[in-house]
Amino acid sequence: MPSCLSMESPTGVAATPRALPYYVAFSQLLGLTAVATTGAWLGLYRGGIAWEGALQFNVHPLCMVIGLIFLQGDALLVYRVFRNETKRTTKVLHGLLHVFAFIIALVGLVAVFDYHRKKGYADLYSLHSWCGILTFVLYFVQWLVGFSFFLFPGASFSLRSRYRPQHVFFGATIFLFAVGTALLGLKEALLFKLGAKYSTFEPEGVLANVLGLLLAGFGVTVLYILTRTEWKRPLQAEEQALSMDFKTLTEGDSPGSQ
Amino acid sequence: MPSCLSMESPTGVAATPRALPYYVAFSQLLGLTAVATTGAWLGLYRGGIAWEGALQFNVHPLCMVIGLIFLQGDALLVYRVFRNETKRTTKVLHGLLHVFAFIIALVGLVAVFDYHRKKGYADLYSLHSWCGILTFVLYFVQWLVGFSFFLFPGASFSLRSRYRPQHVFFGATIFLFAVGTALLGLKEALLFKLGAKYSTFEPEGVLANVLGLLLAGFGVTVLYILTRTEWKRPLQAEEQALSMDFKTLTEGDSPGSQ
Repeated sequence: MPSCLSMESPTGVAATPRALPYYVAFSQLLGLTAVATTGAWLGLYRGGIAWEGALQFNVHPLCMVIGLIFLQGDALLVYRVFRNETKRTTKVLHGLLHVFAFIIALVGLVAVFDYHRKKGYADLYSLHSWCGILTFVLYFVQWLVGFSFFLFPGASFSLRSRYRPQHVFFGATIFLFAVGTALLGLKEALLFKLGAKYSTFEPEGVLANVLGLLLAGFGVTVLYILTRTEWKRPLQAEEQALSMDFKTLTEGDSPGSQ
Repeated sequence: MPSCLSMESPTGVAATPRALPYYVAFSQLLGLTAVATTGAWLGLYRGGIAWEGALQFNVHPLCMVIGLIFLQGDALLVYRVFRNETKRTTKVLHGLLHVFAFIIALVGLVAVFDYHRKKGYADLYSLHSWCGILTFVLYFVQWLVGFSFFLFPGASFSLRSRYRPQHVFFGATIFLFAVGTALLGLKEALLFKLGAKYSTFEPEGVLANVLGLLLAGFGVTVLYILTRTEWKRPLQAEEQALSMDFKTLTEGDSPGSQ
């Protein structure tokens, strides 16, 4: 199977690798099904959603799944999906999707803290909450650092090149933490309500387990798309020139070396 | 910072990247602390370990943490730590570590099924158990496929080259699934025993939360080491020759092309 990286159409626009759109479509199918299943779970077994009263808690899982999982995951995919737009457009879209994800997650976070306060429950005692708050803080820091390096005009090309792999690694890690934290939260919600009845294959338990697998499946699919080197966004003309300059400057090959 | 990949000592042995040993040491510190904390948790709050009676359950978390997390993680690091041994030696070590991990995990799995049977508890109803059995089956399949491609002499060089990135991705995914499943199991064990007392910051709850973060930290550190391209094992002389042949055969550049 030949690599598609070097396939250029006559207009100079690099072709999209053949299998990539199918994987992206599959990821969206999984992600949207996970969001719908979260809605179905909350609607069917938890009385639905409202900002006031006991249903305020339910805002939390829905917002976290939409923000920190679905939208965060899609923000990671921006560089694989938008392959021929200018780097700046793609960057702004990536940053904006993360802003939306952050705001929705913030609403979900306020909902659970507010609900706890009204009910007189303790905060931040569980492994779910520890992982969650860690994920949220890291997400915010990653956004700030990413913004200052890549969108703010100050950082040099060499600084950006050095930071990029760290940004990608920690972005993927924070995303995976979000998925793991959601699974922990789901388990907590199930055990608090169902207790020993969980072991009798109650329909709510089975639906929530399926939701857990959907979330994990979305996480794996996004990571798979992200880590295929042959699916990376091709360098645009402007970047290619910059990258060549940088290579010449830093590679340290003297003309006489082999 | 110059790349260390091309640094060759006069004997032809590639130098180890400077920071790598510190990261590997840190991963081992985290991994061993996680194993010790699992032991401490089971010893202090769960009455210790035995194959007979109620303590049989405790064999499960200890074996899973040692096998599917610590040893599996270390098996992934083999190619980063053993940099100058022959490819075959490194492969055999990688495969053997996975065999040990598998056997220990199997003991852990038998322990929990046997315990459930004696107590009359249902099997495989929880998200933890679904994720766990999925991880274990995938681990076994990955080992079998890895063995047939890389250790069994039949597979061609080009087949190996094509399968390698898939093997690495799914290996890392299965490892992360093991970490996530352990966190779900930990949460389950806490909620079943502590219930509402979990929210009063019981010492057992806090210790188990710390254990959860240690396991997640070990996972992240192993993945970080694994994904640094500049820390990849340098090609040995034999592989270099093969790889050059393969490149010439498959690159499809005709002498006249640019």
